[in-house]
Amino acid sequence: MKKKETVSVKVAQERLRQIEIKPGTEIIGVSEALGRICAQDVYAVINQPPFPRSPLDGYAVRSQDTQGASIKTPVKLKVIEHICAGMYPSKKVESGEAVKIMTGAPIPEGADGIIKQELTDEGNENVELYESVRAYGNYCFQGEDVKQGMLLFEKGVQLRYMHVGIMASQGMENIEVYAVPKIGIMATGDELISAGQPLIPGKIYDSNGPLLEARVSELGCSALRLKSLRDDARGLAEAVKSAIGHCNALITSGGVSVGVRDCMPDVAKLLNAEVLFHGINAKPGSPMMVMVIEGKLVFCLSGNPFAAAATFEVLVRPVLERMRGREEWKPQRVWGKLNTAFQKPSAVRRYVRGRIEDGIVWLPEGRHSSGMLASMAGCNCLVDIPGDSGKLDAGASVEVILL
Amino acid sequence: MKKKETVSVKVAQERLRQIEIKPGTEIIGVSEALGRICAQDVYAVINQPPFPRSPLDGYAVRSQDTQGASIKTPVKLKVIEHICAGMYPSKKVESGEAVKIMTGAPIPEGADGIIKQELTDEGNENVELYESVRAYGNYCFQGEDVKQGMLLFEKGVQLRYMHVGIMASQGMENIEVYAVPKIGIMATGDELISAGQPLIPGKIYDSNGPLLEARVSELGCSALRLKSLRDDARGLAEAVKSAIGHCNALITSGGVSVGVRDCMPDVAKLLNAEVLFHGINAKPGSPMMVMVIEGKLVFCLSGNPFAAAATFEVLVRPVLERMRGREEWKPQRVWGKLNTAFQKPSAVRRYVRGRIEDGIVWLPEGRHSSGMLASMAGCNCLVDIPGDSGKLDAGASVEVILL
Repeated sequence: MKKKETVSVKVAQERLRQIEIKPGTEIIGVSEALGRICAQDVYAVINQPPFPRSPLDGYAVRSQDTQGASIKTPVKLKVIEHICAGMYPSKKVESGEAVKIMTGAPIPEGADGIIKQELTDEGNENVELYESVRAYGNYCFQGEDVKQGMLLFEKGVQLRYMHVGIMASQGMENIEVYAVPKIGIMATGDELISAGQPLIPGKIYDSNGPLLEARVSELGCSALRLKSLRDDARGLAEAVKSAIGHCNALITSGGVSVGVRDCMPDVAKLLNAEVLFHGINAKPGSPMMVMVIEGKLVFCLSGNPFAAAATFEVLVRPVLERMRGREEWKPQRVWGKLNTAFQKPSAVRRYVRGRIEDGIVWLPEGRHSSGMLASMAGCNCLVDIPGDSGKLDAGASVEVILL
Repeated sequence: MKKKETVSVKVAQERLRQIEIKPGTEIIGVSEALGRICAQDVYAVINQPPFPRSPLDGYAVRSQDTQGASIKTPVKLKVIEHICAGMYPSKKVESGEAVKIMTGAPIPEGADGIIKQELTDEGNENVELYESVRAYGNYCFQGEDVKQGMLLFEKGVQLRYMHVGIMASQGMENIEVYAVPKIGIMATGDELISAGQPLIPGKIYDSNGPLLEARVSELGCSALRLKSLRDDARGLAEAVKSAIGHCNALITSGGVSVGVRDCMPDVAKLLNAEVLFHGINAKPGSPMMVMVIEGKLVFCLSGNPFAAAATFEVLVRPVLERMRGREEWKPQRVWGKLNTAFQKPSAVRRYVRGRIEDGIVWLPEGRHSSGMLASMAGCNCLVDIPGDSGKLDAGASVEVILL
């Protein structure tokens, strides 16, 4: 094959951004919604609290009745009812009357204040108050936390535990969320065998399949692991065509470079695919290709494990986030200072694995090759090194993408 | 009930820390291990790569044979074999010989360097080399990434996608992980009804049950939601006793204060529980209680939704992390600057909900009451305000716990 024209990461990202993505939605139970992306603006259907509520244990009174009350000049009221949380008052409080009330119970009609039980004689039939209360003192208004009709949270939010709690407090049973995209994962290469099989000379265990499957799952998509395939263009083309029939997108690894067994470009031709780009002006993973077949995106990553992992973050993840309903998702990028010098400048943009902790970026020394995977164990970020950076000294500021 | 002695958060945490926790372990498939906590140190069982490997498409040669090669004085070698990734060389390279080799293929015996195909005439039976290679140039050594026996990662690590990929690359099928603790969740209170039921006057929808269930699930534990119960000490005691029989720990909400319907202290007596503490010197959630029954921890949180959520983070989560195998887990605490003043100093330590973004801490204005839940929708941290802080001005540095 001829050397093809490569695009910058920015151009590649922009071409992907131009692809229209219309995630489906579904209505599910609030109790299953954790981690899903909300597909509706959520409004309050009831007031919270649903009734005026006592914030403490004490007596519901008419505030006017309590004026001038003190230890020396207590005000005596008739206790007409006892109300606990979960009960509802049956009587209206008239002048000279009080209702003994517990935290969380509804304040009866007529009362406009609560006197703490510690400021009374705690009587059950009559009560002596040792302090006055102002109008609406210790009074939680209906709808004080949430007014019916108020926007609680917006479409596009990833539902966490607090959202589940808020929806439950509103009595909501169901919620519209975006459907979980199904992502096919297909590792290719004659050299691959699966874990559990004996290691035949010349073969290696497939790590791209399991790694990509796990990452896709971490990101809240449904990963469909497909059989690893040999380097055969016709067989691969058939498998790709079949896979896109039951996936929202497909990720392959291997076969994208210029060797005799690099079949993915031939697959593109056989399937009459629209190739968005083939080759990015960045390391690792520069041979990667993205094509569209029957409206479905097929990401063809390098077979080198770290190259596949790095290009996944930079070019695949943003698309997956849009597919799951996060149209506005952006990677978390932060700045840190290199702990040691980085001696391998490159004319092209470079993604290097690292660990950021308290603003310091640690690089696994000498273990950066795109074929190496093990040094990712302690990593939590990709360091994004511009093409023109030159050699980086210890202490240099670098931007990282959090994993 | 009499007012009881309260303990500081620090003392409460220390008493919980003293409780011995012995998480169980189990052996599971690597493909199910995502998110679990590793219960073994993981060592490499094979070298990676398993054989000396070519990092590029080209020719495997004896470096000595290539000395002096240039465009003008090419070195001509006999091509004795073609090797792709996944194949294994059948011949040794002798002087004057070369093997055509593809990226990822095993380097044949005798060869000690690879010449890039772009620096040759790309011949199939004979090849002309236009450059020399030094000994072990372009040569990936066996075990270069990982040496058999090397420690890959340690016990206690939460398994992420890279760990799954690394284990797969080693051909590992199974891994020992900590068992997932089963945590019972029981909301109590006569006022509670469940989502989907009509809202009867005086009742509220239970949000603590769903919120705690969701949070426990987010943290990788298995949440066992138990029926919400009425404020009745005997009924509650029975339910608690039954629950701890099939949970590793139990979390209740409601009934811990000093009102007539606050039954949890009576439950403690009825079940002859060891009370670790009852009452913390902090807000919100100060009435909370922790007891040990038949060796199981029972966390009795306040019924106020935000109080339950906040004390969960500070006092329950650290225990759950230990139960799932993260003995050394610490909350992520960072410093930020308040966006607005916080006007409500308190004599005791205070936990306030907030949102930290780029070092700025936003507080949901005027919506801090422990009964309010809705304002947690946009929050991602708890601001930890010491008891002696006084009024905090805008710009003040505060420490937050990330949620």
